This record gives sequence, C-alpha cells and structure tokens, in this order.
Amino acid sequence: MAVMTVTTPPAALDHDAPLRVDSVRLQDRLAALSGIGGIQGTTGSARLAFTDADRQGRDLVVTWMEDLGLDIRIDAIGNVIGTLEGTEDLPAVMTGSHIDTVRTGGRYDGNLGVLAGLEIIETVLAAGVRTRHPLAVGFFSNEEGARYQPDMMGSLVYVGGLPLEEAYDTVGIDDTTVRNELDRIGYLGSAPVPGLAPRAFVELHIEQGPVLEEAGVQIGVVEGVQGISWTELEIVGQSNHAGTTPMRLRHDPAWVAAEITTFVRWLALEIGHPQVATVGMLELQPNLVNVVAARATMTIDLRNTDDKLLKQTEEQLAAKISELAEREGVTIASRKLARFEPVEFDPMLIDRIEQAATAAGLSTMRMPSGAGHDAQMFARIAPTAMIFTPSHLGISHNPAEHTDPDDIEAGANVLLSVLLDLAEVVEQS
Amino acid sequence: MAVMTVTTPPAALDHDAPLRVDSVRLQDRLAALSGIGGIQGTTGSARLAFTDADRQGRDLVVTWMEDLGLDIRIDAIGNVIGTLEGTEDLPAVMTGSHIDTVRTGGRYDGNLGVLAGLEIIETVLAAGVRTRHPLAVGFFSNEEGARYQPDMMGSLVYVGGLPLEEAYDTVGIDDTTVRNELDRIGYLGSAPVPGLAPRAFVELHIEQGPVLEEAGVQIGVVEGVQGISWTELEIVGQSNHAGTTPMRLRHDPAWVAAEITTFVRWLALEIGHPQVATVGMLELQPNLVNVVAARATMTIDLRNTDDKLLKQTEEQLAAKISELAEREGVTIASRKLARFEPVEFDPMLIDRIEQAATAAGLSTMRMPSGAGHDAQMFARIAPTAMIFTPSHLGISHNPAEHTDPDDIEAGANVLLSVLLDLAEVVEQS
Repeated sequence: MAVMTVTTPPAALDHDAPLRVDSVRLQDRLAALSGIGGIQGTTGSARLAFTDADRQGRDLVVTWMEDLGLDIRIDAIGNVIGTLEGTEDLPAVMTGSHIDTVRTGGRYDGNLGVLAGLEIIETVLAAGVRTRHPLAVGFFSNEEGARYQPDMMGSLVYVGGLPLEEAYDTVGIDDTTVRNELDRIGYLGSAPVPGLAPRAFVELHIEQGPVLEEAGVQIGVVEGVQGISWTELEIVGQSNHAGTTPMRLRHDPAWVAAEITTFVRWLALEIGHPQVATVGMLELQPNLVNVVAARATMTIDLRNTDDKLLKQTEEQLAAKISELAEREGVTIASRKLARFEPVEFDPMLIDRIEQAATAAGLSTMRMPSGAGHDAQMFARIAPTAMIFTPSHLGISHNPAEHTDPDDIEAGANVLLSVLLDLAEVVEQS
Repeated sequence: MAVMTVTTPPAALDHDAPLRVDSVRLQDRLAALSGIGGIQGTTGSARLAFTDADRQGRDLVVTWMEDLGLDIRIDAIGNVIGTLEGTEDLPAVMTGSHIDTVRTGGRYDGNLGVLAGLEIIETVLAAGVRTRHPLAVGFFSNEEGARYQPDMMGSLVYVGGLPLEEAYDTVGIDDTTVRNELDRIGYLGSAPVPGLAPRAFVELHIEQGPVLEEAGVQIGVVEGVQGISWTELEIVGQSNHAGTTPMRLRHDPAWVAAEITTFVRWLALEIGHPQVATVGMLELQPNLVNVVAARATMTIDLRNTDDKLLKQTEEQLAAKISELAEREGVTIASRKLARFEPVEFDPMLIDRIEQAATAAGLSTMRMPSGAGHDAQMFARIAPTAMIFTPSHLGISHNPAEHTDPDDIEAGANVLLSVLLDLAEVVEQS
C-alpha cells in the first residue's frame, strides 16, 4: 500500500464496502479553485481561457496533481492530463472537463469534472487500490469559447478535429492570439496533438438545466448531446409613423419577428421533448415607441438529439420565413451561425453509469445534454458518456450556479465506480 | 390696389378667377428653409427646438414676414405670429404650424404649413384683396418634442393647456431648460400667453402616412386626431440555457413579448380601421443567441379616433397581459407613458375644406390624423380643422420625406380658398 497521508474515512479502507470519495475534500478544492478569479460577493469566478486567472487556476490544479504523484503531460494546445499508472501498459481510462470559465462563471461548470477526477484518484490512492488500466484526469483548454472561438477547442484539437496551427492563429475578443497567450502563461506544452485515444472517457458535469431538480432525480445518465442549429435573420420592412400608417399598409419587421418567435415555440411543442427552440436575441431599428420598425435582427436556436427532427424544424422554419416575407412584403436574409450534428454516447457506458447509480441507491434519469461538452469531442475517438448532477433552478454561466454537496458527492461516487469498473481493479490477495 | 412687385401669374389678378398661390415661390422658400440645419446630401434638416439652427430658421421666416409688412408678435413661449390687418378689428383667421424638426427631419413636416400661410398672405397682398378679419400665420415652438417634452409645447401653452412656468422649467435631453434656451436664441417674447382665440384655425400639413398616395387622392380632409395610448411593459422571467431548459419549464419574456406583439396586431385588425397598434420598441436582456432571456422591455402604441374603442383595446390588452403573466410564470409591470383623448375637428370647417377642394376639381378623402399637430391644441379654443397633402410612401421624420410639388400647390390653394372664405373678402367696387 502506498505510503501517504490518508484523510479518507475509514470505510474507504474496508474492502467489502465500495470506495467513496471524500466530499469535504472535494468541496474544499472547488472552493479554493473558485477563489482564483473569484467574483466579489459570490461563489463564482472569471477565468477566461489563457488569461492570468486561468494560469493561476491551472497552476493550482497542477500542484494538486503533483501532490498525488501523477504523471503530468501538457500538450501543444495546453491540455493538461495527469495519469496514475496502471499495472499494465494499456490505454488510460480518462475523465476530466475544463477549468476555464465565462466572464460570469459559476463554481461548478467544468471545475466539478476535473476536481472530482482528482478526488477519485486520491481516493483510489488512499485505499491502495490498483487498476490494470491507468486512470487519467485532464482539463482541456478553452472549453467555454468566451475569449476564443470555437469553444471546446482543447478537446477538439486533442481528437484531431481542428488543426493545431488553425487553433494557434485564432484571434480573441481582445485581439490576442491563442499561440501567444498560451506561450505567455507557460502552457504551450510539448505533448503531441492529436493525443492518444483513451480506453474510455467519462465526464461528470452539472446539468446546467432544471430537469433533474424538477424531477427530484440525483443522477442524469447522459445519452448524447443535442444537435444545434443557430440561424440569424435580418428582416427589412418599411419604417413608418405608428399613428398614420393603417395596419393593412404596414411591412412591419417587429411583427414578423414576433410571428417567427411564436411559431418556433409552437414547432418545438408540436415536435415534443427534447426539441427546444429559443429566440434569445432580438433587436429593432430605430426602436422607438411611435415608429414602425425598419429592421429587426433576431436569432433562432434549435436543438434536438435526433438530426432528422432537427432538419425538419429547420425546413419548417425556412418555409415559414418564405411565407411571411411574401405575405408581409418584407425581405428576410437568413444566415447559419452554427450547425452541429447530435452526438450519441456509447450504449454500454450509458448502461454502466445507470447500473452504478442504481446500485448505489440513487435515482436516475436518461437525458440528452443540451449544452456542448468536451466529452462530445472524445466520443469521436473512444467510448464516451457523461454523468449529470442537478443544477439549482438550472442556473449556469452565472455566479449563482449551485449544486447541492450531496448531489456532487453522489455524482462523484458514480463516476468513481464507473472508472474503477472500466480500469479493472486488480484483486489484492 | 397695393403697389408692389408682383410675381404672381396674371390669373391671380383676374377677379373672375379664384386666387392661386405661386408654387415656385413656395417651393423656393421650402428649399431655403430646409438649407438651415440642412442634412448633407439630402433635402432634410435638423433644427431641434431652441437650438442655433432653430434660431436661424426663425430669423429667416421672421424676415419674410417683415418683407410682407406683417404685424409680428413673439409671445412668452416663443410662438411667432405674423398678422395682415383686416378691414375691421375682429379676431384673426389663423393658419400655421411649426418649423422645428426632429434630428432627422424632412423638408415638409411643419414647414409646409408655415410657408404656405406666408405664401397665401403674399398672394392676397399681391392681388390687392382685403378681408374683414385679419389673416394670421404662426409658427409654434417645440412641436416635435425631440429636445423637450411634451411635444406641441408652444401651441399647448398658447391655448392655456400648460402653465408657462412649467414649460420654462422643462429640462431637455441635453440638460438645458426651455427658459434659458429661449432667452439665449432671442425668442423669449413679450406677447402674453394664453393667446387670443382666433376666429378659426386651419393647418396644412403633409399626411406623414401612406393613405392618400395609396388611394391616389390629392387632398385629405382631416376630421380629427386619433387618441393615443402608450404603454411600456417590463416582463421578467427566468433566464436559462437555451439548450438545457425544456420548453415546459421555461418562463420566457421574449416569447411573452412576441405573443403580445402578435395579439395587438390581431386586436387592431379585429376592431378595424382606423385602429392601429404598434410594437416599435423591444429590448431583451441579456440578448444572447443561446440564453433564454431574463427580461424584455417593450412599448405598445394604440390609437383610435373613437375613445370608447381605444379604451376597449386597452382593456383587452390588460386582460391578455394578466393571462400571460399567470400562464407563463412571468411578472409583467405596466406603465402608461402617454394617454391623449381623440380630438374632433369642427364639422362646418371640415365641410368647407371638402367643398373648396371639390370646387377646385381635386379628389378628397376624409380621414383622421394619426399624428399629433398644433391644430389639435387650437381645437380647444376655436373652430379648427386640417388639410393633408400626400406623403410619398408615408415616409416622415426622415430626410427622404417627399410630397409632389403639384400636391403641395393644390393643398396651399385649398387652404387659401378656405382662409379667404373665413376671413370674408371685402368686395372692391
């Protein structure tokens, strides 16, 4: 058994009971990391990718990896992977997420997946458990995309989905480049990309939606990531006096935008869950109380796990747009801002997560992820799945983001169980 | 017959034919005035009330009044009235409008009514025609309300609808006060307000809407001014991730705003012409493609000539707002921004305008004014009506504002005929 200071509860040393993470230690690390770039008066943080705050966060997590004696590799896009050796030279069972945040980030988004992975490795080490496959925990660069587009950049480069040079040349919102900033913060590493395919990748993440809390369920078994279709419309009509222009002579972009907004909600309800449709951005010009608008700019965010249904909503939206343009005498220019196909996770892994949670007496629900995650990139090269924990009121990308410590502990323990299962515990006799 | 340089066509001197304005002279004055505060590359102007540009415009019109030998009075709120004596000491027959503009003003809005009045007096003078009642033409301060609220300030003070001191203390968008700026530009006059009630008030104005042009009609016989109801709504819902929040768990202010927008159009169509309903201002927060909005702010502009119907639309809107707030789990705060009752013009004057136009072989249409005008204030103290000329495409408050010179001439000649009729031409034997 490895010699080290053990702070895990005695139960973790009892071979008859399953291993359990140390919830207090995990919470302490979450709090410590959130203090870096901390947002005054909240539990949230601002650690935009490759900023000084990101570097300090990275340094802290790397220190923790070093403390556990992990083999630490930094690759050319700044992804950091800490590995605990297995008894055999096999591909690692990998977990992880990201530690960069949006400007108004919460404590749990991304950080939970990284620090739970670290906690699991510490728990395994403390219990003296050995596995055939190595256990690896990584944090992947610029998942949020709040400073550099595209988001999920680190994991995308890791799996070979984006050439390194292209990622390097990305210019951020502050006119810096990824290469210069990575170099500046000391995380332009030497490990090659694309990286090695792991045996499996399992990511723990907060749901960032209200479904689990609303249903009173502790563990979300994520079956895949929704496909995304973002459309921007520019509707040009005829600006006129609101008092002097009879209704029948109007070409009103604000009304057309409203009609599209109500139409896409109707469409989402008609198609049914998990189809969602959102008009989150809408701007009128000149935007005055007594002037029929000249122009409306709006976005439509459509998502579904089923690409066929997603395409169907896109087609129905396009038909509605044509119909309205003709009927209302306005011009509507449509631009695709983003289009991602849905990702399906590994069915065997999905089953394992569900079984592990059920065995631990936790309630579960199969669900899609509505948001993008590093795991969806790993799904291209390895069996992959995700575990969700509830998000209070679904609030995320906000310092008010919160998940109950019991739910975090439960999620981490399910991840622990699945990782050990995949890494194959070596029986000690 | 008065001795002066006569530039009117010979027909004006023929006592058997009706007097006719000089269209070229009127167009020259419109062009000259629009050059003051002129907007480069357009025929429009920017002469916000009580600015240097407004002063220069005033000075030019006052010079023209002086050239015609009119008795000029400037009152305490800066209204300027030029009067041509009648043969008897009777109340004047008054016409006029305003020469202040919005920041992106056109050539005709307001200016036409003032300069047509001037042109009519010049025509009358040139023809040596005398009237029992004096003929007066005025321009009234701050009609647009683009710098100081309320709009129609000068005519409102003239008729006693707003105390002078209250008007003086009005603070503008640039933190100046009406009193200081009036004083600064030299138009804080000594004539008392409220002013004398005229025998009648008739205002010529461009329609600022598309109705006359669409119908191919030259003269709009204005029966009154629509009542106006302005409401601002602040809708607060629950901001959430657009991907992770199922439709049934949303409290989406953007959707509620859209539903209200489509509802008020339906309501206007249901009630029928001249009811109009406009959502011209709508803002979302945080206004991002992938975030269900937290908040929507919107305005609703409702107008009708029939106050009972206007009240009915207000009530139906209020009921819809309550229903949506409850059904969607959002809070909706409603604030009245403005509420004016409809104004009815004088039936005898309306008939006279219609008869004068018909006698001149012009096509006419009775219609309400959807916009506010100085005439609606004079309706409180004297028999009042308005004449509309077509506005190309209904464009107004825009340098592209345009009315055909033939339509302007026609409108001015109808006004001339009505004013002479009211002022009672003294037969010369």
